Amino acid sequence: MTFSNELHVAVVGATGAVGTRMIQTLEESNFPLTKLSLLSSARSAGKKVLFRGQELTVEIATPDKFEGVHIALFSAGGGVSKELAPEAVKRGAIVVDNTSAFRMDEGVPLVVPEVNEKDLLTHQGIIANPNCSTIQMVVALEPIRRAYGLKKVIVSTYQAVSGSGAAAIDELNKQTRNIIAGEEVTPEVLPVKGDKKHYQIVGNAIPQIDKFEDNGFTFEEMKMINETKKIMHLPDLHVAATCVRLPVETGHSESVYFETDQSDVTSAAIKDLLAASPGIILEDNPSEQLYPMPINCVGKNEVFVGRVRKDLDNNEGFHMWVVSDNLLKGAAWNSVQIASSLLKLGLVK
Amino acid sequence: MTFSNELHVAVVGATGAVGTRMIQTLEESNFPLTKLSLLSSARSAGKKVLFRGQELTVEIATPDKFEGVHIALFSAGGGVSKELAPEAVKRGAIVVDNTSAFRMDEGVPLVVPEVNEKDLLTHQGIIANPNCSTIQMVVALEPIRRAYGLKKVIVSTYQAVSGSGAAAIDELNKQTRNIIAGEEVTPEVLPVKGDKKHYQIVGNAIPQIDKFEDNGFTFEEMKMINETKKIMHLPDLHVAATCVRLPVETGHSESVYFETDQSDVTSAAIKDLLAASPGIILEDNPSEQLYPMPINCVGKNEVFVGRVRKDLDNNEGFHMWVVSDNLLKGAAWNSVQIASSLLKLGLVK
Repeated sequence: MTFSNELHVAVVGATGAVGTRMIQTLEESNFPLTKLSLLSSARSAGKKVLFRGQELTVEIATPDKFEGVHIALFSAGGGVSKELAPEAVKRGAIVVDNTSAFRMDEGVPLVVPEVNEKDLLTHQGIIANPNCSTIQMVVALEPIRRAYGLKKVIVSTYQAVSGSGAAAIDELNKQTRNIIAGEEVTPEVLPVKGDKKHYQIVGNAIPQIDKFEDNGFTFEEMKMINETKKIMHLPDLHVAATCVRLPVETGHSESVYFETDQSDVTSAAIKDLLAASPGIILEDNPSEQLYPMPINCVGKNEVFVGRVRKDLDNNEGFHMWVVSDNLLKGAAWNSVQIASSLLKLGLVK
Repeated sequence: MTFSNELHVAVVGATGAVGTRMIQTLEESNFPLTKLSLLSSARSAGKKVLFRGQELTVEIATPDKFEGVHIALFSAGGGVSKELAPEAVKRGAIVVDNTSAFRMDEGVPLVVPEVNEKDLLTHQGIIANPNCSTIQMVVALEPIRRAYGLKKVIVSTYQAVSGSGAAAIDELNKQTRNIIAGEEVTPEVLPVKGDKKHYQIVGNAIPQIDKFEDNGFTFEEMKMINETKKIMHLPDLHVAATCVRLPVETGHSESVYFETDQSDVTSAAIKDLLAASPGIILEDNPSEQLYPMPINCVGKNEVFVGRVRKDLDNNEGFHMWVVSDNLLKGAAWNSVQIASSLLKLGLVK
């Protein structure tokens, strides 16, 4: 490692659904930091957080707070990132940004360490953490691309409310209590906090995550499409996505159809490959009813893959079911992995 | 109509999740029956049911109960159908069977009236009602097939627990109460009552509906694949399915990708076509966040379609979101529609 003995890390959005996981993950992974700054909006400033036995106070995120910071992990919404990430970079920090603010910008590496860690070498201060639903999918697809090529992906997602933040988790829990008590439900957050209409999530499946684009796809679907091409360096890959929100607190699931370049690949070969690939746990044994489920992935860093089977009509086609904790591999853990990669590659000075 | 003045209908499985909807649907649709027999297992026999202001008593389903019955609607599980449907036919009844017992048998029409009503003309006593998830999909696909041809379908489902019967509904509700009360959850029904393992459905998405086949697909998935080909008379259609159970009480949703034979079809043309097709309500206006959701389809007979959009890479490819009440169009309403078609076609004597 080339950084000095000091390693100062800042977490921006420290009290949010992802920020709290970032702090936990930094602690649990023994990340070699020597100082941790917890930053937030004025509303959450002053809160106390225990980290490695020390009580830290959350401070208001202002430009000067990034003086001396080596790595700043941002997860406080796109607006905050747009305003403060350049300020952090100006003061010498490397920003790992968990929002969509810079992901598609040229010169901003969009990184999933299992897939494209080397892209970090070209960073210009800001590194983007991809969308949660994209990350778990590319972790599962990358070993397949390397071994057999990849030409087409069609994904339908089953996404947890925590992907929409702490307010959405509160809404799911409140609605559940309301319904059990026979009370009226007043949706205020989902599907998209800033959109016009809100719908009940309990007992429902909402085919809208983030706002709609002019082409009829949602922004979440376009994120999956565009980010996958960028991360995998496959600008011509055919990718289509349908993103759906479910009454699940944490853990995104994905029904993924993909086509390889090679024909005559067997599903057994795909399973062996996935089982041996970094960051993946294969859970695939139909006779034992073993397959990934969101309820089992919570709190785990890995991407769980199962239900791998060959398409019945297309010799190059396969189906699989991919599940991961959207707050960990989909956000906090991937950000901390990026930070670790930055250290490993000698990029933190 | 060629039947005599008397029309005697029997409902087998009269106290189940589908059976109760069949009775409701017969009443609400003013089905021209003159006598209704309600049949069930010994366990439910003796229950009273109000029908058109009259109290009817549920009786044990035995072969002699079908004497004089013109149409028998079965929904009491495959075992009961296999045993009693031939007995009903022997006594002159036409059986509309809602189980999978006879669906793929040659000589048994598998009918969705909007799609293949004419197949009823060749019946030999038993007519099969397709699987719930198949019905709503073919209603949406058939107008597209007629106008533009259809060569490929890839579907991922979001299925409600009521598709697995009344015990699964009870389980969803009981688990919700348990979790709110901080009590332990003991899954006993889902994903498949007769399978070895049971998993919590609340806060989860279970990628198993019905038992696994040797090819890695579940029986539910193979039902969707094989039934779609049979109903649409497209033995060479490429169909693939991934079926997933959700914590939703009623209302199946489906993310459907399909490819037409013709290129240069627009999504506007597909939407116009669907809006004008029988049994379909188009709910598709992204700028108003209008799309189908299970919570809105409950108690309605139609199939709701939205999120229609052209694939970004394939000029023949489209995506859509299809939602329907699995107990109505997916089961009870489709069965009663078949019975009405039988009358209309003069097949009840």
